[in-house]
Amino acid sequence: MVPRLTAIYHVRGDAASIAVRARAIAVEQSVEMPVAAIDDAFVLSEIVGRVDAIRALTDGVFEVRIALAGETVGGDAGQLMNMLFGNTSLHEDVILSDVELPAELVAAFAGPRHGLPALRQRVGAEKRALTCSALKPQGLAPAALADLARRFAAGGVDYIKDDHGLADQDYSPFAARVEAIAAALAAYPDTQYVPSLSGDLGTMRRQVAAAAAVGIEAAMVSPMVAGVSNFHRLAQDNPSFAFFAHPALAGAARIAPELLIGKLFRMLGADAVVFPHHGGRFGYSPDTCRAVARAALADWHSLHPSVPVPAGGMTLARVPEMLDFYGADIMLLIGGDLLQARDRLTEETAAFVTAVHRYPYG
Amino acid sequence: MVPRLTAIYHVRGDAASIAVRARAIAVEQSVEMPVAAIDDAFVLSEIVGRVDAIRALTDGVFEVRIALAGETVGGDAGQLMNMLFGNTSLHEDVILSDVELPAELVAAFAGPRHGLPALRQRVGAEKRALTCSALKPQGLAPAALADLARRFAAGGVDYIKDDHGLADQDYSPFAARVEAIAAALAAYPDTQYVPSLSGDLGTMRRQVAAAAAVGIEAAMVSPMVAGVSNFHRLAQDNPSFAFFAHPALAGAARIAPELLIGKLFRMLGADAVVFPHHGGRFGYSPDTCRAVARAALADWHSLHPSVPVPAGGMTLARVPEMLDFYGADIMLLIGGDLLQARDRLTEETAAFVTAVHRYPYG
Repeated sequence: MVPRLTAIYHVRGDAASIAVRARAIAVEQSVEMPVAAIDDAFVLSEIVGRVDAIRALTDGVFEVRIALAGETVGGDAGQLMNMLFGNTSLHEDVILSDVELPAELVAAFAGPRHGLPALRQRVGAEKRALTCSALKPQGLAPAALADLARRFAAGGVDYIKDDHGLADQDYSPFAARVEAIAAALAAYPDTQYVPSLSGDLGTMRRQVAAAAAVGIEAAMVSPMVAGVSNFHRLAQDNPSFAFFAHPALAGAARIAPELLIGKLFRMLGADAVVFPHHGGRFGYSPDTCRAVARAALADWHSLHPSVPVPAGGMTLARVPEMLDFYGADIMLLIGGDLLQARDRLTEETAAFVTAVHRYPYG
Repeated sequence: MVPRLTAIYHVRGDAASIAVRARAIAVEQSVEMPVAAIDDAFVLSEIVGRVDAIRALTDGVFEVRIALAGETVGGDAGQLMNMLFGNTSLHEDVILSDVELPAELVAAFAGPRHGLPALRQRVGAEKRALTCSALKPQGLAPAALADLARRFAAGGVDYIKDDHGLADQDYSPFAARVEAIAAALAAYPDTQYVPSLSGDLGTMRRQVAAAAAVGIEAAMVSPMVAGVSNFHRLAQDNPSFAFFAHPALAGAARIAPELLIGKLFRMLGADAVVFPHHGGRFGYSPDTCRAVARAALADWHSLHPSVPVPAGGMTLARVPEMLDFYGADIMLLIGGDLLQARDRLTEETAAFVTAVHRYPYG
């Protein structure tokens, strides 16, 4: 038997009704039927969800801890999401705040194959923060994107990722794009390209193969678009690839970002996790950003650490502040702000790289 | 060129700032970089999102209509979700309310292969509502689930679906379960079994094959867990199968249910769409329920209608009220309430079936 896991929800309600509400969530996320109608002894003792604790937080919000049977997960990432939040996601009064997982289950999912140390090693970085930029806008042809990539690489950036909108469109087919960009980067062995995968699992497998064929060893996936089971499968089946997880469609899910991005995406194999840093185009608070980074890096069931990649409208001017905030165990991603330099893209990229390299890491 | 599509958002804000906010969403959901830094004429004229209209709704909420390039979708369902709501899902002030799609794009996704008329025909129903029940709780072994299925079928129910928690667990492996249930239902040709698929796309393909091998011709998928591209791929590649879409993990997405469940799941191939009916265990309003059913059935780009399946704690006592509310173009799904009858399960199922058959359809 896999031991129980503990799902931790934040539930809006009042003291008079929270015990009943908590019990309803425990039933909804396990047997999903009236418990009184269940005879089976195994189901009653092992499968029915159990409310372990309820405590008041603030303003009519309660933390509810519910033990769920690890057996129900069946070793599948999608089924884990289903058991944690499948039907309860339909209830507006509940947020999935955290989960405590048995070691066996985490070990079975395996986590990042590479993680922070390997991503540093790939680009010859020692203890410093890593640098990254993004190819955009979508709509550009492969040759134009390859030219941007070459100029970023000439500025010395460690990783260059596709914008997550770059898929397999007629104006820039995936295979033509990765081929053009790989060719453009051949002269820059310390810069790695991270193409964005899209489509169903079969399509993403073919994209990985096309990328591998031109020497690429990293890829980006949006797990909430692709389906977490498919993301996990790709990470398991492509051990030479480093996987970046993008948060598209993940923010809406009323699942705490530090859990979904920092903990679950990592457990499923993300070597790096992209998330919005505060003060840019998105509304995550400093506390949320810190919590995501901590979860990605924490000593947790012996998994490799995922590289936190705070992003979303970052600028060169903010590099020192962001390194003060996160420290060295980070990949800084600046896209649009560098692209605004236009003809001076390489020089602006070099300034970004220099700022990161010269920062006085503690 | 694929024509533009129109994404319709509901945005919280004030009159002084809504124009700027709308423009930011249009940029975020298209080029995701400062427009001033874009030189490419094709990108500027065709790819950059365009705010077409803003109008005040109520209480500081505005409807914002944004035209997005159909070309960016690249024919992929996941990329469609990404373009409609990928990054903007990270903004708490925005709901994706609706989308207007060019006919070419809808035709390419194709919609339900079977839909309402075929699902009626399969079980020998004419104009009446269809009936459905659910196998649960998870934790039961295949033989116990097969016994439940036999007793539901003896009561005359049209469809029997797996609870969405039934995956591929050690206590009830998928292949053993469908084999046992198919055998139990062999004597009931007018009752169809709808097993729930789980796992990555390869696993779901093997589950479809295992189900087909024992004569099953329907399956349930949770598109937001599986990834919409994989759901669409399964529907495309298995023309003999009818697909039921389950809303697990879909309620949390701040996407209007009538859009996601009624319109998008249908466009991607759902022959039937399960959603929570008001007054049960979930909080959808009557208006939302009506809107989901209308979207699933509407005359829209010549797609087959999806069967609305309102569910989530429905009871035998509510059958007349639900038929008054929805009319005949519906599948009524009652699970736990029938299971509470225990030894009288077949009789209670027969009462459900009789209530639906005898209802005076207008």
